[in-house]
Amino acid sequence: MFSKFLLDNAPQQVHITQGDTDGRGVIISWITPDEPGSDTVLYWSENSKNKNRAEGIFVRYKFFNYTSGYIHHCTIKNLEYNTKYMYEIGIGYTIRRFWFKTPPRTGPDVPYTFGLIGDLGQTHDSNVTLTHYESNPKKGKTVLFLGDLSYSNDYPFHDNTRWDTWGRFIERNAAYQPWIWTAGNHELDFAPQLEETTPFKPYMHRYYVPFASSHSTSPLWYSIKRGSAYLIVLSSYSAYGKSTPQYKWLRDELPKVDRSKTPWLIALMHCPIYTSNSHHFMEGETMRVVFESWFVKYKVDVVFSGHVHAYERSVSTIHFLIQEAYIKYCI
Amino acid sequence: MFSKFLLDNAPQQVHITQGDTDGRGVIISWITPDEPGSDTVLYWSENSKNKNRAEGIFVRYKFFNYTSGYIHHCTIKNLEYNTKYMYEIGIGYTIRRFWFKTPPRTGPDVPYTFGLIGDLGQTHDSNVTLTHYESNPKKGKTVLFLGDLSYSNDYPFHDNTRWDTWGRFIERNAAYQPWIWTAGNHELDFAPQLEETTPFKPYMHRYYVPFASSHSTSPLWYSIKRGSAYLIVLSSYSAYGKSTPQYKWLRDELPKVDRSKTPWLIALMHCPIYTSNSHHFMEGETMRVVFESWFVKYKVDVVFSGHVHAYERSVSTIHFLIQEAYIKYCI
Repeated sequence: MFSKFLLDNAPQQVHITQGDTDGRGVIISWITPDEPGSDTVLYWSENSKNKNRAEGIFVRYKFFNYTSGYIHHCTIKNLEYNTKYMYEIGIGYTIRRFWFKTPPRTGPDVPYTFGLIGDLGQTHDSNVTLTHYESNPKKGKTVLFLGDLSYSNDYPFHDNTRWDTWGRFIERNAAYQPWIWTAGNHELDFAPQLEETTPFKPYMHRYYVPFASSHSTSPLWYSIKRGSAYLIVLSSYSAYGKSTPQYKWLRDELPKVDRSKTPWLIALMHCPIYTSNSHHFMEGETMRVVFESWFVKYKVDVVFSGHVHAYERSVSTIHFLIQEAYIKYCI
Repeated sequence: MFSKFLLDNAPQQVHITQGDTDGRGVIISWITPDEPGSDTVLYWSENSKNKNRAEGIFVRYKFFNYTSGYIHHCTIKNLEYNTKYMYEIGIGYTIRRFWFKTPPRTGPDVPYTFGLIGDLGQTHDSNVTLTHYESNPKKGKTVLFLGDLSYSNDYPFHDNTRWDTWGRFIERNAAYQPWIWTAGNHELDFAPQLEETTPFKPYMHRYYVPFASSHSTSPLWYSIKRGSAYLIVLSSYSAYGKSTPQYKWLRDELPKVDRSKTPWLIALMHCPIYTSNSHHFMEGETMRVVFESWFVKYKVDVVFSGHVHAYERSVSTIHFLIQEAYIKYCI
């Protein structure tokens, strides 16, 4: 049944992320709570009068006593670089209109401003954090999100309505600029006591990422290029020992980076491999011993992590030794 | 269609493993190649005249251009300890009969003999290894298998008929005594080039283990008690970082061990956490930094591993330091 005038089935929790390797694609995601509604996205560049149409899909999931709404994902590809696009969803029903701007063509001399947010949650402080990002005079154009989204699992029975409230909370920003997703421990939603034993189930239904474009076999690790940056997203809570899918993917991925095109090589992971904070101390060690030597070999510029709720920046460190070259340079 | 007289659909690749926590259960597995056939197992203790009946299930899988036969799994429970049982499969069709002996009741003073095999494969040497085990005058009663079964993935397109030939090869032993399964890297069968991206797919269809009995949510890690031993099976190729399912399971499992009932606490994993061999050197480090402190805290007696095709035994070592107490004891 499709009720055309039921207003509360309007699209909600709208968010976008990059939809291909190079930044000419966007994945648009939204939820209709009561009925499937349309999977269509209409979009057009700011200066165009012709609306283009893209068709998406929807998925649903159950978690304990919760059943999700209709979670729509629609990928738009082959957009022009550096162009503002308008888009509409809820077609044939309650139309909502948003916009985003594509990044400049990937290249070495392309200025671009990323924001960094992790461990956001949905408290008063969460709102302060997002407002702080939005009000920064250096307007961030894309959010690198470092894992731990809604903290639903901290509520009774992993209350998945908290995934919905979080989606509504971030829409004001995430509908207009891409958020690049990294999975954190709060995305695991592993609850054998509720007979919910599929890790990342709510997260992977709600937050699609373009993993196949970078020949990854899992949405939990993937890469994109954007502006002058090559961004590699890793999963702290999946297997990464030798021979595992994530290990093999990263081993094959790092040699593909062309620093003459993307001089910035950036890794994102939830759990830091270096941290001095007592909370979560040494938790990243198990990934460090596998991946650090590759980060060094391929000269990763920076690793961004969340997890520890305190700001910390390390000088260049390899196997816990501060690098002399770096110290001389600093002096 | 069920063709009653098609002889080549007789059960093959028969193997058994423990089917519960305490050793009173057995999982009996076999394959019928052409038709489903019966899922029934008839079984009776040596001294009994009444046949009992248990009903199993069958599963199948596809891998690239291969489709498996009908893989039957039937769990028998509540057997008597220390008793020889006969069992029959292929009921109503081509009946094959085997036997096994249940272990003594779990307890601190129960002599029992385990065999250790890992990285077996299916070469001439594999046959020598199995024959060596079988001909040992100290008759092994249960095989602790340390991962790397058939090496199918070393054949073109991960030729899954090699899983079948391996099943036929080990039947002569594994149909008569339990083999306790650990997953190795050769079980991953991760082949994105063949669009096969589900890790452990052939292994998990063919080799069932009683993981749910020990409140595990995955067949890749679980525990059983047998004789005077508490056996903990871990997966070197799954996630084990903090917050992951395997981590949480082991954290909750180790405190359950009652050394007054099972004085021997034994961990099985494919990849060793200590090895001096240049091949696979330091691969186990990523698991060591997570689990070693628990092994020490809970006084694990011994960790058995495969992976490195060379014999090596370490003296008691914690964080790469040989323990003084042990050295004094040796002197």
